[in-house]
Amino acid sequence: MIELSLVGMGTGNPDHITRQGVAALNAADVILLPRKGADKADLADLRADLCAQLITNPATRVVGFDMPVRDSAAPDYQGGVNRWHDAIAEVWLAHIQAHLPQGGRLALLVWGDPSLYDSTLRIAQRLALQLPLRVSVVPGITALQALTAAHAIALNEINAPVTITTGRRLRDHGWPANASTVAVMLDGQCSFQQLPTEGVYIWWGAYLGMPNQMCISGLLVDVGQKILEQRQTARAAHGWIMDTYLLRKSDPDPA
Amino acid sequence: MIELSLVGMGTGNPDHITRQGVAALNAADVILLPRKGADKADLADLRADLCAQLITNPATRVVGFDMPVRDSAAPDYQGGVNRWHDAIAEVWLAHIQAHLPQGGRLALLVWGDPSLYDSTLRIAQRLALQLPLRVSVVPGITALQALTAAHAIALNEINAPVTITTGRRLRDHGWPANASTVAVMLDGQCSFQQLPTEGVYIWWGAYLGMPNQMCISGLLVDVGQKILEQRQTARAAHGWIMDTYLLRKSDPDPA
Ligand SMILES: C[S@@+](CC[C@H](N)C(=O)[O-])C[C@H]1O[C@@H](n2cnc3c(N)ncnc32)[C@H](O)[C@@H]1O
Ligand SMILES: C[S@@+](CC[C@H](N)C(=O)[O-])C[C@H]1O[C@@H](n2cnc3c(N)ncnc32)[C@H](O)[C@@H]1O
Repeated sequence: MIELSLVGMGTGNPDHITRQGVAALNAADVILLPRKGADKADLADLRADLCAQLITNPATRVVGFDMPVRDSAAPDYQGGVNRWHDAIAEVWLAHIQAHLPQGGRLALLVWGDPSLYDSTLRIAQRLALQLPLRVSVVPGITALQALTAAHAIALNEINAPVTITTGRRLRDHGWPANASTVAVMLDGQCSFQQLPTEGVYIWWGAYLGMPNQMCISGLLVDVGQKILEQRQTARAAHGWIMDTYLLRKSDPDPA
Repeated sequence: MIELSLVGMGTGNPDHITRQGVAALNAADVILLPRKGADKADLADLRADLCAQLITNPATRVVGFDMPVRDSAAPDYQGGVNRWHDAIAEVWLAHIQAHLPQGGRLALLVWGDPSLYDSTLRIAQRLALQLPLRVSVVPGITALQALTAAHAIALNEINAPVTITTGRRLRDHGWPANASTVAVMLDGQCSFQQLPTEGVYIWWGAYLGMPNQMCISGLLVDVGQKILEQRQTARAAHGWIMDTYLLRKSDPDPA
């Protein structure tokens, strides 16, 4: 039996991790860490630093693995993603067979919270088809929480709903029906540009939780261009960017 | 100048707190804690226990305050809430004047994450009208994350949106337009009963993160009645209940 713990690590601030997360890492026999990818090397380092800083159990082994590369040229997008997830599950399985042949406790660090736009749980389901597996989840701080904390704002208006969506959906479907607050993730294209700006307020954040955190807020009509420019400059300087934002149509700051 | 730190504490599990949260508590000169209310005594104890367990700085003082009571008989609901928030800000102000007359660092523990259906940030805005105040937010694990972790499920379907809403809105407005996943909080009435059950899957949780955590999931048509019954029994036994749930209309477990 493999006990797999998926540990939410927050979004770049090593102090985002919970006490439960620290305990889960130290309870693991093996922690699997992705080795550097080509472009986001500092994110791989961040995971390794977190382990170096937090693991006090001498019996816990940290094992690096090479993340399979997704075939982004695959004609069918969903098929490409599915094959990529299969390949990741295969790599995990090989490491389990090598390092935990008698079973034991395995932990993986997951960016933010494992529940939000992350495929680790789905990859773990594939693994469950191959061996006896018990999955547990340790929640972590999401990019959305890092965003609202950085701006010191509430996610929702009083008793009002919130829609969480992706950049692609915002482009394809426009402002979600009946939503007053829209949180946007996975947006490589500043899709807010496609919206009518009338009365829309934006709270934008990049590299949230990291030393180079950026925050811009204001009426979309006033700050939209500034976000585009600063995002482009930062992305060029770092080689990558992760950003997320909140849009609101009503009064930005109701009492 | 008062530096006010709003520290998300998670939803009942003392190990939900982040390392950043522990540091913020220990950096505070004063921590204001609500004293026992009549009905949710164990929740007040939980905050006190958390402080007792985590505070190692001998200079940090924990100060209890009596939470003003909301006038639930007020004819205008919103007016009643506003006056209640005013009263809380007054109490905080009095404690600041008594314990931090020269300014300093004040911390408050906030249930879950301060951004989600919580009024602490709004009450802090009132305080900012009375004295020089800098507010910072330390994110915490929300009840929704405790829910998805307990069930080991993703919040969203792949690349799909999620609507977070309240029990009242679900009753008044029905299933949110175009939503596949709906997360419901602040629901004292199992408002899912008002929905057509056809094809709806539910993941329900109560006392999430606590020793008496309850989880039920399944097709609404199969488990709805069981949730109603177990919720009523647990509520009678404890004197109170907090629950939250996720509803999904499509296939409950897409690959
Ligand atoms: C694949 S999703 C993973 C989300 C993660 N599981 C979470 O809980 O936040 C990645 C998206 O999260 C957002 N994101 C993650 N980390 C971020 C950060 N440090 N700053 C800004 N946005 C971030 C971006 O929108 C990015 O496109
Ligand atoms: C006033 S809101 C506060 C939410 C909190 N700020 C958070 O981040 O989760 C209270 C609602 O959160 C949910 N909730 C909070 N704690 C919970 C728990 N331990 N178990 C289940 N639901 C909880 C319930 O829906 C409850 O009505």
